[in-house]
Formats: sequence, C-alpha cells, structure tokens
Amino acid sequence: MHILVTNDDGVMAPGLLALVKTMRELGEVSVIAPEQNWSASGHVKTMHRPLRVKEVVLMDGCTALASDGAPSDCVALALLGLVAKPIDLVVSGINPNSNIGHDVTYSGTVTAAMEAVITGNVPAIAISLDGPDNHQAALDFMPAAVIAKQIVQRVFEKGLPKGVFLNVNVPFLPLEQIKGFRVTRQGLRVYRDSLDKRLDPRGRPYYWIGGETPTAIPEEGTDYGAIAQGYVSITPLQLDLTAYQALAELRQWNW
Amino acid sequence: MHILVTNDDGVMAPGLLALVKTMRELGEVSVIAPEQNWSASGHVKTMHRPLRVKEVVLMDGCTALASDGAPSDCVALALLGLVAKPIDLVVSGINPNSNIGHDVTYSGTVTAAMEAVITGNVPAIAISLDGPDNHQAALDFMPAAVIAKQIVQRVFEKGLPKGVFLNVNVPFLPLEQIKGFRVTRQGLRVYRDSLDKRLDPRGRPYYWIGGETPTAIPEEGTDYGAIAQGYVSITPLQLDLTAYQALAELRQWNW
Repeated sequence: MHILVTNDDGVMAPGLLALVKTMRELGEVSVIAPEQNWSASGHVKTMHRPLRVKEVVLMDGCTALASDGAPSDCVALALLGLVAKPIDLVVSGINPNSNIGHDVTYSGTVTAAMEAVITGNVPAIAISLDGPDNHQAALDFMPAAVIAKQIVQRVFEKGLPKGVFLNVNVPFLPLEQIKGFRVTRQGLRVYRDSLDKRLDPRGRPYYWIGGETPTAIPEEGTDYGAIAQGYVSITPLQLDLTAYQALAELRQWNW
Repeated sequence: MHILVTNDDGVMAPGLLALVKTMRELGEVSVIAPEQNWSASGHVKTMHRPLRVKEVVLMDGCTALASDGAPSDCVALALLGLVAKPIDLVVSGINPNSNIGHDVTYSGTVTAAMEAVITGNVPAIAISLDGPDNHQAALDFMPAAVIAKQIVQRVFEKGLPKGVFLNVNVPFLPLEQIKGFRVTRQGLRVYRDSLDKRLDPRGRPYYWIGGETPTAIPEEGTDYGAIAQGYVSITPLQLDLTAYQALAELRQWNW
C-alpha cells in the first residue's frame, strides 16, 4: 500500500510526523506538504503562478517534499504525477484543532482530502485532534496517530463509497480514555468572530478578524457531539452541496 | 434594501460593475471586493495577518471598498461591522466563467456567498456567466446582470430557506435567446488538469497546474445541463457535506 501524507500546518509540524510514523506501519509512505501554515485557507487550486517543490528532511531523518502551494495543491501535484508511484490513499493531518461543522469548507486539512477525491478519485481521510486552543509544542499526537492507523486499516479492508471521504476528529484524551468510535453527521460550529480595528504607527487603520475561539453545539449524532462525549468522530463527507430539500420549493417560485 | 456586492476577480472587474448597476435599481448598494484576482482561492478566513481596506472609485464614479483579503474575508469584514448599515443580501459576481459541479468548493465567487450564510445568516447569491475561456475584455455582462436583478427580486419576495444560498450560472447568450430558468442540482465537472514541469533560467524545476479547460457532463436536471440548453441554472446550495447515504454502511463496520 502506498499512502500519501499531507497537512495544512506545514511539513515540519509534529502532527504530521506522528501520522507518518503510524502510516509507515501500514505500507509505503510519501509525504508532500506545504512549507508553511495554511490553516483556514480553503480549497485552493493555484493556477496564477507556478509551484515550487523542494526536498526536506523530517525530524525522524526521512525525506519529504515541501511545496509553496496550499494543501490541496500538494495533493494535486502528487496525484498529477509528481509522485510517480500510484497512490492508494491520502491522509491529511494531524491537525492540532478539531475540524467540525462549517470548518470543513475552510480547513486546509479537509480540503486536501477533497482534492484527493476530485483529482485522483482516491480514498482520503482528514484527521484532527481536538487539542486545547493555546497548546504547547508538546501536544501528544500519538493517540490520534494510532487511531488514524485503525481507521486506515478499515478503509483498506472495506473501501469507501465513490466520492466519499472521511473527516475524523479525535478527543484530546489519553488513548485508554477514548471510549470508541462514532459515525456522525456534520454538526454546527458557533463562530464568535469579531472585527478588531487598530491603527498602525502611521495612523492608518488595519483590521484583524478576531474574537473568541469558536464553540459548537454538542448535539447527539454529530461530530462535536461525539468528541464532547469522548468518542472518535468519523464523518463521511461528499462534495455535492445541493440543498435537495429546497429544490421543490424553489421550483414553485415564479421565475 | 441594502445589498452587499463582492466578487473574486477584483474590485475593478467589469462583471462587478455590471452587477452593481442592476443592484442599484433595487436598493442601496455597498461594494467590498478584493484588490486582486482570487479565482479558485477557496473558502478563506484570514487570521494570521491583519487586513487592509481602502476606498477606490469604480468606473461609474461611485466609491467602493477594496481589501487585501479573499472574497470571503471581504464578506466577513462587512458583516462583522466594517459596513455599518445592516446588510439584507449578499451578491457575488459576475464571474466571467461558470461555477458548476465541484467548482463550488474552489470558487471565490461561491465561497463569498458561503461566508454570508455562515457569518451573517444573510441570504446570498453567487452569479457566474458561462463565458468563453479566453474572452476579450469586452465580454457583455449585462444579460447576466439583468438576470441577477430578477433573481434578487424573487429572493426578496420569498426569502431563502435557512442556510441555503443560490449558485446561479448564466449561459453566454443575448438576453432574448436565454430560454428561461431551471432550478437544478450540482452536476459533475470533468477536470483535465495536468502537471507542466519546467526549468527556470537557473535550471531548477517549477510546476504549473495546467492542462485543458475543464468540461462537464450536461446531465438533465443539473447546473451544466441547464446552461448547455440555454437556460439560467439556479442551484440551491447548503453547507452540510455529510454523505448521509454512507452513514448506515459505515456504522456497520467493525470499528
């Protein structure tokens, strides 16, 4: 098995290293990830400029590829031929914060998985740890990496339905305290953004999108409901955004 | 009525100007759009740097705001308070190329509309013209702008279901040759990307994501099916990406 690992925190992020470690126990691993952090960068296809790729050495001594593109660009580069050997599965992460609810359209971690489905029709898994907001560098990614391995094994055994990829969120708990797995639907994030207007040293305004850390509604059956109760959340996602429930009503409007 | 207009091609794009013109026939219009082109830039929330906003004068002599953020940042800035007067509706466009199928997760035009729903719970419409790939500057956006006006009027009358926004695509035809409106589901794009490896003057490689212009499957009932037959396509979209049809199967796996 040939697994492609990427992320949105940058190729040197500790979450990627932990993921690479457990993925290597399952098969051959190639790594291509952004040089820099691309959090909340969305689903990008960089077409207005060319992309650079360089070889870097990870903390474990293995080589990886780093690109100046977005996470989704990294996956596209690999699947379009930069990585010669066919790729069986793409795993993106481990993000140090959860990606739940509406996060999925912003998240570089999740949009990298989207790209695997679109460009390569390859099964893909995004994996995020529900880490504390202002964590130290020593955040332990190994429980989530072990869980990623279990999930990838199941996906290899069973295969994913066409067009479906998995958005996995892991509670921030020691492995033995994680209660199990829940297959969930996408829940609701509650963003608490606010605009922070400041003046630069020359008296001109600039604006931060700031505010409180987002919360979420811990509804039963949802991604956040599962991790709030100590379960791993596995949400199957797809890329048809049609609001089917609205079609009938809109067709009755007098266009 | 107070309408916010944005786009992903940049505040000086002719498609925005045409849209502003017909929106002004319906109510008060505020404009905030990126300084530069953000096509295929995805759903962005810029948090790692502050955003600048400046006043610019459009070709019609009216003022608009231009930001160095993404289209979705522009909408967030406005809804978080940069535009003081409450906004009743966000319209994004007119994009010179169609946004159909999987385009919706990449498209700055569409992700601006997503942001209106998430940040402001405001009805939103993305509007794109199915223009030729290598068009001249003289592309006529007025038919699409007139159609945008008709659609916005309907949305003001009826309201959109909660969480639903509209992705509108207009065929590249004179107004009198457009056959009518179709409420559609998201169809299938066929991307034909390829990797174009080149060497810079110093002999080092760089990579373009290139290839042929994407096509699409003109299936009946879909976005592309409608515009291929000369109809305006109106696709109601929502932000729950859960693959509901896969939940039952995945719940049977031995996790």
